[in-house]
Amino acid sequence: MTQMDYAGMNIATPQIKHVAEVEQLPEELILKGVAEGKIVIPCNINHKNIVPCGIGRILRTKINANIGNSTLSSCPGAEKSKLNIALHYGADTVMDLSTGGEITSIRQAILAECTAPLGTVPIYEIVARYGSCDFAKEKILTVIREQAEQGVDYMTIHAGLLKKYVPLALKRKLGIVSRGGALLAAWMQETGQENPFYEAFDEILEICHKYDVTLSLGDGLRPGCLADASDEAQFAELDTLGELVFRCRQAKVQSMVEGPGHVPLDQIQMNMEREQTVCGDAPFYILGPVVVDCAPGYDHFVAAMGGMMGAYHGAAMLCYVTPKEHLGLPNADDVRRGVIAFKIAAHAADVALKKPGCRDRDDAISDARAKFDWEKQFETALDPAWAKELRQQALDESSAPNQHGSEYCTMCGPDFCSVRLSARLKKEVNSR
Amino acid sequence: MTQMDYAGMNIATPQIKHVAEVEQLPEELILKGVAEGKIVIPCNINHKNIVPCGIGRILRTKINANIGNSTLSSCPGAEKSKLNIALHYGADTVMDLSTGGEITSIRQAILAECTAPLGTVPIYEIVARYGSCDFAKEKILTVIREQAEQGVDYMTIHAGLLKKYVPLALKRKLGIVSRGGALLAAWMQETGQENPFYEAFDEILEICHKYDVTLSLGDGLRPGCLADASDEAQFAELDTLGELVFRCRQAKVQSMVEGPGHVPLDQIQMNMEREQTVCGDAPFYILGPVVVDCAPGYDHFVAAMGGMMGAYHGAAMLCYVTPKEHLGLPNADDVRRGVIAFKIAAHAADVALKKPGCRDRDDAISDARAKFDWEKQFETALDPAWAKELRQQALDESSAPNQHGSEYCTMCGPDFCSVRLSARLKKEVNSR
Repeated sequence: MTQMDYAGMNIATPQIKHVAEVEQLPEELILKGVAEGKIVIPCNINHKNIVPCGIGRILRTKINANIGNSTLSSCPGAEKSKLNIALHYGADTVMDLSTGGEITSIRQAILAECTAPLGTVPIYEIVARYGSCDFAKEKILTVIREQAEQGVDYMTIHAGLLKKYVPLALKRKLGIVSRGGALLAAWMQETGQENPFYEAFDEILEICHKYDVTLSLGDGLRPGCLADASDEAQFAELDTLGELVFRCRQAKVQSMVEGPGHVPLDQIQMNMEREQTVCGDAPFYILGPVVVDCAPGYDHFVAAMGGMMGAYHGAAMLCYVTPKEHLGLPNADDVRRGVIAFKIAAHAADVALKKPGCRDRDDAISDARAKFDWEKQFETALDPAWAKELRQQALDESSAPNQHGSEYCTMCGPDFCSVRLSARLKKEVNSR
Repeated sequence: MTQMDYAGMNIATPQIKHVAEVEQLPEELILKGVAEGKIVIPCNINHKNIVPCGIGRILRTKINANIGNSTLSSCPGAEKSKLNIALHYGADTVMDLSTGGEITSIRQAILAECTAPLGTVPIYEIVARYGSCDFAKEKILTVIREQAEQGVDYMTIHAGLLKKYVPLALKRKLGIVSRGGALLAAWMQETGQENPFYEAFDEILEICHKYDVTLSLGDGLRPGCLADASDEAQFAELDTLGELVFRCRQAKVQSMVEGPGHVPLDQIQMNMEREQTVCGDAPFYILGPVVVDCAPGYDHFVAAMGGMMGAYHGAAMLCYVTPKEHLGLPNADDVRRGVIAFKIAAHAADVALKKPGCRDRDDAISDARAKFDWEKQFETALDPAWAKELRQQALDESSAPNQHGSEYCTMCGPDFCSVRLSARLKKEVNSR
């Protein structure tokens, strides 16, 4: 029985109750959303230490942090430290995208510590184990079954990239930039066969239903640069993803849809609305989108800007991007930067959408600012340690008394401090 | 004769011709914009080494970097180094907001090196020189005249904050967060007199006309937190700024209007459109806006997110914010981070608005990506040194051959590289 099965029978599981509580929304709304497939709660029955997390347009915007090694880089220890940093700074879900050696044991170690839903892209392990030339159905299903049994909460499956879409994508400036998508396209072009995940979709649904694995329908044809955005290839695949959503719903398997990618700002709203229409409002899980191509080193920031607008227009979850995007495998520090950038983006959208309780934190820090309560400001900050460090740095570089308690900062000093002046004026007015 | 005088007589000055060329727009469009006051080209007749820069909704979005010392921090040498960093990373204009000692000589040194338009906030020097209790008209005019003669290209004058608006602002969570605004409010409350800049506005116009100083009509009542955004105080002042714009236009003094501040995402479009209506489409020069309050240490980023949306909805220039905002006086490294964040924001908006030539850079870097031309990627990047450093860091942390020329990065390695796979597929298809 999946969460969707229960919700369909109007049974509020502990997971559904938990989501209602943290989202400050009525239980019935969550029940309805899960039953209709507009909210997912990825939680594999074998992932024992998970804290359930709801993903859907009406809920708070969630963010995902990708970790994982590559064939060239990183080790199990490094991945565990990335996991802890991601969780510490507030990642709502984590994906282990390892493609190098020891994939199974790295995932095992991560699952044991990961209180957030954990996602994977099974094709990576399939290729790492069997090579990129062999996508025999039984091999695909073996890996998916093993991962499901291990406790993976959601899996990206690129089942929407049909053979006929490949030529559309090869017309592009950057072709296919999804790893899974490119591997599948190469195989389909080589063998002339249809997408093996599409062909095995019913069997995949069976496995996912058994363990309540949420399917994240991957966009193998997401655009990799502004010039390629919103093209025929992208939307052809989206149509197929929409069909797959309905097959998932019929099978009572939870599903979400993955989205772009590189998209200029003016096309974000249209992209979000199109997914809602084509995919029956299934939770949209987007990567960025990256709104300019020319800022390598700052792509966490560029993608968070697009992500903010995506969330504002209905995306349910943002996959973070790190400063290393387009340059190399992120390390722990990149994970931190990526998570924080996306926490800010998600929060900005949630505040604008007036989701319950979201602005409380902003009001609290503003009250603390008005009172020069520095400790409270740091406490309410998204990254207290960093805020504290910057203030200390400014104090160290100044002639100001080196203490946090002072009623000004080194920007204005006491004579030019507007907050100080305002507080005085307010006091005078109130004492009249 | 100001640029506006010339444009009104249909004379294309060298400055107007220059702006038309760099913006890739017809000269007539710039002429008309300057004549109507919808485009400004701040260039004081005494700022000899200036490269003219146009500011207006139809032009590329400009960004301003604030530098300057405080009574507690920094020295002339540090300010010169901030200037050079700001210009190096692409600030279109620079404001010297010094409030500490040696204001005149710091400004002199900055003007001598500053090829971008330089702005100031004269009330800072007035207060530094005469204290905050004496805003006698002749003192105000003396400072403004001296700065104009020195070559300052634009000046923020908080003439729109009328006495009757002060009580509206004191109702807020954070009161008045503009330094100039708070100083004036305190003085007006103390003396019972009207805003001295408003009272002296005709004389100020006379000085500005003589030197072709552009007036930047300051928003002393910009909101300082989300809770205070778009309130009565803010819009009351905006109405007065609109009246002042028309007085500037009658006097053929170029003018722009300053805007918020802290504004939630959902109110940005409305704020931009309201300014366009109320102020006759005078260039809107906005500070951020900051879209969440709770991310001190990352406010460069938070403000750039809002700035991007502001520019998309019509703001002409974005005033950067640095990571030190709300924490202390920025140093040179903060200036760099702030400028880059805002370059990205401005570029994202310009690309989305399809301004002439703006996407060329993105297309060039995407072509370089498809070809694994790393050198070209770095060259086209907004911050080449930083991109190079991150790639090198990733290589150093990996087992990959330590060279830039390789046809993959450490994220995917050769086997999982989608760009490499795509290139191969494209080649195969084309060779058939």
